Amino acid sequence: MARRIDLNADLGEGTEAAHHASDDAMLDLVSSANVACGGHAGDPDIMFRTLSNAARNGIAVGAHPGYADRVGFGRRVIPMELDEIGRMVAAQIGALQAVAALVPVKIAYVKTHGALANLAARDADVAHAIVDTVQRIDPRLAVLAISGTEVERIARAEGVPVFSEIFADRGYQPNGQLVPRGEPGAMIHDAAEATERLLAFVETGLMPVVGGMPIPLEADSICIHGDSPSAVAMARSVRAGLTDAGVELASFVPAAP
Amino acid sequence: MARRIDLNADLGEGTEAAHHASDDAMLDLVSSANVACGGHAGDPDIMFRTLSNAARNGIAVGAHPGYADRVGFGRRVIPMELDEIGRMVAAQIGALQAVAALVPVKIAYVKTHGALANLAARDADVAHAIVDTVQRIDPRLAVLAISGTEVERIARAEGVPVFSEIFADRGYQPNGQLVPRGEPGAMIHDAAEATERLLAFVETGLMPVVGGMPIPLEADSICIHGDSPSAVAMARSVRAGLTDAGVELASFVPAAP
Amino acid sequence: MARRIDLNADLGEGTEAAHHASDDAMLDLVSSANVACGGHAGDPDIMFRTLSNAARNGIAVGAHPGYADRVGFGRRVIPMELDEIGRMVAAQIGALQAVAALVPVKIAYVKTHGALANLAARDADVAHAIVDTVQRIDPRLAVLAISGTEVERIARAEGVPVFSEIFADRGYQPNGQLVPRGEPGAMIHDAAEATERLLAFVETGLMPVVGGMPIPLEADSICIHGDSPSAVAMARSVRAGLTDAGVELASFVPAAP
Amino acid sequence: MARRIDLNADLGEGTEAAHHASDDAMLDLVSSANVACGGHAGDPDIMFRTLSNAARNGIAVGAHPGYADRVGFGRRVIPMELDEIGRMVAAQIGALQAVAALVPVKIAYVKTHGALANLAARDADVAHAIVDTVQRIDPRLAVLAISGTEVERIARAEGVPVFSEIFADRGYQPNGQLVPRGEPGAMIHDAAEATERLLAFVETGLMPVVGGMPIPLEADSICIHGDSPSAVAMARSVRAGLTDAGVELASFVPAAP
Repeated sequence: MARRIDLNADLGEGTEAAHHASDDAMLDLVSSANVACGGHAGDPDIMFRTLSNAARNGIAVGAHPGYADRVGFGRRVIPMELDEIGRMVAAQIGALQAVAALVPVKIAYVKTHGALANLAARDADVAHAIVDTVQRIDPRLAVLAISGTEVERIARAEGVPVFSEIFADRGYQPNGQLVPRGEPGAMIHDAAEATERLLAFVETGLMPVVGGMPIPLEADSICIHGDSPSAVAMARSVRAGLTDAGVELASFVPAAP
Repeated sequence: MARRIDLNADLGEGTEAAHHASDDAMLDLVSSANVACGGHAGDPDIMFRTLSNAARNGIAVGAHPGYADRVGFGRRVIPMELDEIGRMVAAQIGALQAVAALVPVKIAYVKTHGALANLAARDADVAHAIVDTVQRIDPRLAVLAISGTEVERIARAEGVPVFSEIFADRGYQPNGQLVPRGEPGAMIHDAAEATERLLAFVETGLMPVVGGMPIPLEADSICIHGDSPSAVAMARSVRAGLTDAGVELASFVPAAP
Repeated sequence: MARRIDLNADLGEGTEAAHHASDDAMLDLVSSANVACGGHAGDPDIMFRTLSNAARNGIAVGAHPGYADRVGFGRRVIPMELDEIGRMVAAQIGALQAVAALVPVKIAYVKTHGALANLAARDADVAHAIVDTVQRIDPRLAVLAISGTEVERIARAEGVPVFSEIFADRGYQPNGQLVPRGEPGAMIHDAAEATERLLAFVETGLMPVVGGMPIPLEADSICIHGDSPSAVAMARSVRAGLTDAGVELASFVPAAP
Repeated sequence: MARRIDLNADLGEGTEAAHHASDDAMLDLVSSANVACGGHAGDPDIMFRTLSNAARNGIAVGAHPGYADRVGFGRRVIPMELDEIGRMVAAQIGALQAVAALVPVKIAYVKTHGALANLAARDADVAHAIVDTVQRIDPRLAVLAISGTEVERIARAEGVPVFSEIFADRGYQPNGQLVPRGEPGAMIHDAAEATERLLAFVETGLMPVVGGMPIPLEADSICIHGDSPSAVAMARSVRAGLTDAGVELASFVPAAP
């Protein structure tokens, strides 16, 4: 029975002019920060500020590459060859790594963003392209994958260090997949309800599902969506609920020095 | 008396749609390729293609970061703090390094581009910011600097491996500085004349100047401007002239494997 | 004695992902909206949303072009020829006009942004390039200029309809110029104090200054800075103070239909 | 029997640094120039230069909007809502119109680019979104459509002035559609062969097809692909062949003044 878990959130996705006010608050609540790499969001100054703040708080940092599509915020599938995806992901990871060297702090893992993450979750070829890219850049880089996806399966098969995440604000189906957005039970807006579910999961390893008995799920981390207005409240509630119950909140990789 | 020198050129600065047709020709002529990193020019696919072709030809590869200003092609000074310059340069070098890991090939040196290179040449603070950034990313990365500049001086003072370049198509003043563009003797358009000057320099260590006796200059490399229409002809002439005279053309850093 | 004045603010400068939450609130408070045109900020969807909301509220809309420098949010002077400035400004105004045709609503005026506005305020050549560009696009387009600047002077001299603005949150010097940022009295953070000053100005035509007697100033509009955290509170206070005193708040140009 | 036809080409798609050398040559050969609007390619300075050169040559000018995807050069379908497509197209047309006002020259028509053109050709909703957008911006703007497409059909049905084009370098099927790329007869690389086919078409109204008798086609214009290396040679051959046969080459809209 897991008594320790990670909280992760996407950070550094705002702009200098209109940055996510929630970033600073989130950095006090999560144990891992997925940092935008200049593709769907972010720029060298925002990367540096986010990495520096994470390091100051002792939070682990990962690269958060996505489609290089700022207008669409990485939420649209851009038609690309597998090799093109690999190069795009590589360039973003490398950019963040080099900015991290100025902090200095080590990028410990990679978690893909938005439409790219969703595509890689179900498309083995895309998952393979991403996992291979990460491994070629640095075999010590871990992958943070959505639980039960092709990314997780392929990373494991290839011996790449892989960790999995569940979503604080999403409902699950009996087959372990997310309830599709738009269907009943897809979103969990109430922070108290989300906290209760997560607490039950951490203590039993069983996740409540829509239309069935709770199912066993593997998870090393809980993803708090950082771009919903109530993200900070959700993070605060989940953190308090878990720590009050004696669950240790810590990253699946070493925290920033 | 130097009997060995490098030829370098800026490559990967076109686009997929309208790429510099001269890139392929240049890759047969130079011994070091300065590869655009997605700032003033380039994208992950162009980086990969340029690095792969360079590796196939056994040419050394360096990062060629510049102001992240595509419209201005990196030829305008964008007002930036020193720290901002460092982060911008870091992100570009890192992006190229990670794409290079997919080839795989090692980025061996850094040479700045356009307005950033000109500013760093005369501004010690900017030169310092760039040299420090390179060193923090990887102390084994060399710097390729314009001969006689602040970048060369500071890199040497800080113990960073530094090499210097002269220009095939530019005239020099008695003080070792370039004749400013627009003044008589600034540009050497004739390939035969340029070749003759360079050959004399390589054999004697003395560079002809406008209005004075030839002066001693240090140089490890000759820069062939890649974006002039006659760049390939110039490169071909210089290469032939030097090799015919028994001068070895080889990079100042190890060539790509 | 002016008993009618305009309130203007810069809008549409956020992103879809992280847009200025204050935009909606501001649209209930101002009488003119300066809409970002995709240069320093904005994209076609944000333009459309901002213009549609402004039209729904009966607010006049203007184009708010700036340096095409998203990383710097238009706050850095990008070295450009006068002709280049004109073309950049034209492309931005035209983009907004065409999106406005889809609402439909008419762009009634042009107000430049950030570093471009500051440069044009003091540089007659830049002011001329901008005023000429506006006039060539459509001679019915008005110019909204900072009071007492080269833009105002040149637009007037050329017969271009021009209106002038003062800043709600900035102190003035006896010569009518702003107190430079960083000097005592430069910024007026207190909304009540700002309101009182503006009310006195509207009723007397005299503006309090640092180190002297109040001076006469011409102004058709009051600019509320939209990107400070307290902008909405400032706008609310100024609007309430002026309307309570019987001052009519209305744009200097016809409101959107 | 048509004895007059237009030659069109896409221009202004290069960069300042590496612009299509063929642009200048093409401007001496075509009668209509489709000018990139800053979406898939182009910027205000390139637009101005291209429009100025076209005006000097008395060539008609049209807007050539595409997906705002520079890396993909507008050749990838970016997932977008119909309204988003309309706004994107509008912003690009408006940008070009305003830059044209500085020349001054009038944008006479709109022809979409790449993946957007191909999608609109077969998708009635997308075609409708584009035709409507053009009409709302200015009902006098014509549409240049690929012959036999949804764009042509819908523009005609809505009373929007529409003209159609055939391709100089593409083979046709008996149903009037292009032979898909990759199939035998898809591409006509030989300039003499292309010229002969076009001459026969202009004189008889019948187009040769793969696997059948020549078919009647409607066409007001012949598109010369501007980005193939042999585009200039093709344009030169087609122009000479047609003019030698007494065919008048003139745009379907008034030429630039």
